[in-house]
Amino acid sequence: MPSRQDAEDLITRALIASATSEPAARAVARALVAAEIDGQAGHGFSRVASYAAQARSGKVDGRTVPELAQKSPALIEIDAGHGFAYPAIDLALTAVARLARDQGIAAAAITRSHHCGQLAAHVERLALDGCVAIMVANTPKAMAPWGGDTAIFGTNPIAFAAPRAAAPPLVLDLSLSRVARGKIMAAQKAGTQIPEGWAFDASGQATTDPAAALAGTMAPAGDAKGAALALMVEILAATLIGANTSADASSFFDAQGPAPGVGQLIIAIRADGFVGAEFSHRLEALIATIEAQEGARLPGQSRHARRAAAARDGIEIPAHLEAEIAALVGD
Amino acid sequence: MPSRQDAEDLITRALIASATSEPAARAVARALVAAEIDGQAGHGFSRVASYAAQARSGKVDGRTVPELAQKSPALIEIDAGHGFAYPAIDLALTAVARLARDQGIAAAAITRSHHCGQLAAHVERLALDGCVAIMVANTPKAMAPWGGDTAIFGTNPIAFAAPRAAAPPLVLDLSLSRVARGKIMAAQKAGTQIPEGWAFDASGQATTDPAAALAGTMAPAGDAKGAALALMVEILAATLIGANTSADASSFFDAQGPAPGVGQLIIAIRADGFVGAEFSHRLEALIATIEAQEGARLPGQSRHARRAAAARDGIEIPAHLEAEIAALVGD
Repeated sequence: MPSRQDAEDLITRALIASATSEPAARAVARALVAAEIDGQAGHGFSRVASYAAQARSGKVDGRTVPELAQKSPALIEIDAGHGFAYPAIDLALTAVARLARDQGIAAAAITRSHHCGQLAAHVERLALDGCVAIMVANTPKAMAPWGGDTAIFGTNPIAFAAPRAAAPPLVLDLSLSRVARGKIMAAQKAGTQIPEGWAFDASGQATTDPAAALAGTMAPAGDAKGAALALMVEILAATLIGANTSADASSFFDAQGPAPGVGQLIIAIRADGFVGAEFSHRLEALIATIEAQEGARLPGQSRHARRAAAARDGIEIPAHLEAEIAALVGD
Repeated sequence: MPSRQDAEDLITRALIASATSEPAARAVARALVAAEIDGQAGHGFSRVASYAAQARSGKVDGRTVPELAQKSPALIEIDAGHGFAYPAIDLALTAVARLARDQGIAAAAITRSHHCGQLAAHVERLALDGCVAIMVANTPKAMAPWGGDTAIFGTNPIAFAAPRAAAPPLVLDLSLSRVARGKIMAAQKAGTQIPEGWAFDASGQATTDPAAALAGTMAPAGDAKGAALALMVEILAATLIGANTSADASSFFDAQGPAPGVGQLIIAIRADGFVGAEFSHRLEALIATIEAQEGARLPGQSRHARRAAAARDGIEIPAHLEAEIAALVGD
């Protein structure tokens, strides 16, 4: 099977053939291949054709260069310029890790941004740089405020990472909807009902009909509590930093209309900022109390075996992706 | 009915008669009366006798003075000295708001701390000081990691506040358990079953028996997602800052044993740090899209009417509290 590098090169070529600069294409390709390897197929190869179409239509500016502005000693803003999110996030991660080292805590806001894929991968890099990190993102509208019937929040994910001394970082990454929208689309395709509690119809009533659910809103994880957290994420990732609201953001999938213009906020804290090198021992002691419990799950662990397999065996490139890329590069 | 000030004076006297310094007693009394007025009875008058007993037994050091240490330009640590949490939090809020003004973002960690009541009230003060604020706290063990059967996380609350130009701050405050433990205790007293999904027994199986639930663990809000967030809060509020783990923390209620020694972490960001004065307009526009939906709920709104009523009519002092206080002050 092709290597990780082969897969990245292939996607890079397809994007360069689609009105995207080489540095931006490389950053996007790295992120999509990493997501595919980590088992996040919804943020992986499945996005290539959609991203390329958005760059070709101009919905995404594939040639823009993200710009960094220092807003305060510990606050930076990256203007993604309606380009792809990944080059802007790369810039943000490097800068915010350095700032956190100096200031103890720092935040980076990314505005005029786009789909940012698996947040886990971004916070993981900050953990590898010695930080405990939180990242939030707003996304096109999918959820209503609790008690309401109109979607104004995205699935608004939250991710968190912490460094480990002798293991890859501890990482968690969750959207605030109860299930991913993709599961409802899959039920519609398969002609099956969805379980109760996944979604509401357009009048705000619980529904088990996937078509009614797709015309309605996604249920928040933890009901009113998930809806409250979605409001928090909306304020942090959009209101506070100047990004489009989830309600105003256009689709991450199709190539029509204006750019989504969503936002992301990253907060990094020095992991050794309070207790010094003791942090590692303290975290391992906590993890040991989880791993000692039969059946208990430490989040984010499945990616390790998948990464080892990809490094050893390479990555399967699905036939649809090969065909898409061949069409894009005009082979 | 007595005024807010009368109620604070009464509780202050009871605490001063219970091995507590006057400044600490005043800080505690202010917080308990505010919680009672805000409708958070579990963090209000119901705590007076328990707090007094803990100060008398020495489990809480009622006479300690919290100490502030600057750890980095934007990080401070407050050692609560195994005293009450409120004097330490008062110190943290003043300092972290000033730091956030200078640095853009700042964090305050509170260690060797105790029950900190309604987090909503603390983040609200930062919002009144022009910050968007997040607060997390760890609490004595109540929840298992997802898939496990042994409690190692507290109900580990998260709170958030944002300033509004012409209204009290927007505030949300939620524990990461599906319901409060008090609801299960109430069912046990009433001799009724609890609904499915609230709790697990000691072997990790779902239960509707309140006694089995109290011997087991609380279900996290949003299942695996709530458990993951509880892990995040545990790392931020304890592992990172040097506080006791939830598993090691003693009870907030009884007067026996060592101090709980839990932790709290507060992050404050200048609300005008990215978009200047536009923040207010942006937040009002978002809130308008919630309030326009029939039945939709903006979190934290019930407190406004309660505060107005208390200011107008005073506060009812329940007979049990009057009797408790009379006993404490030796009247």
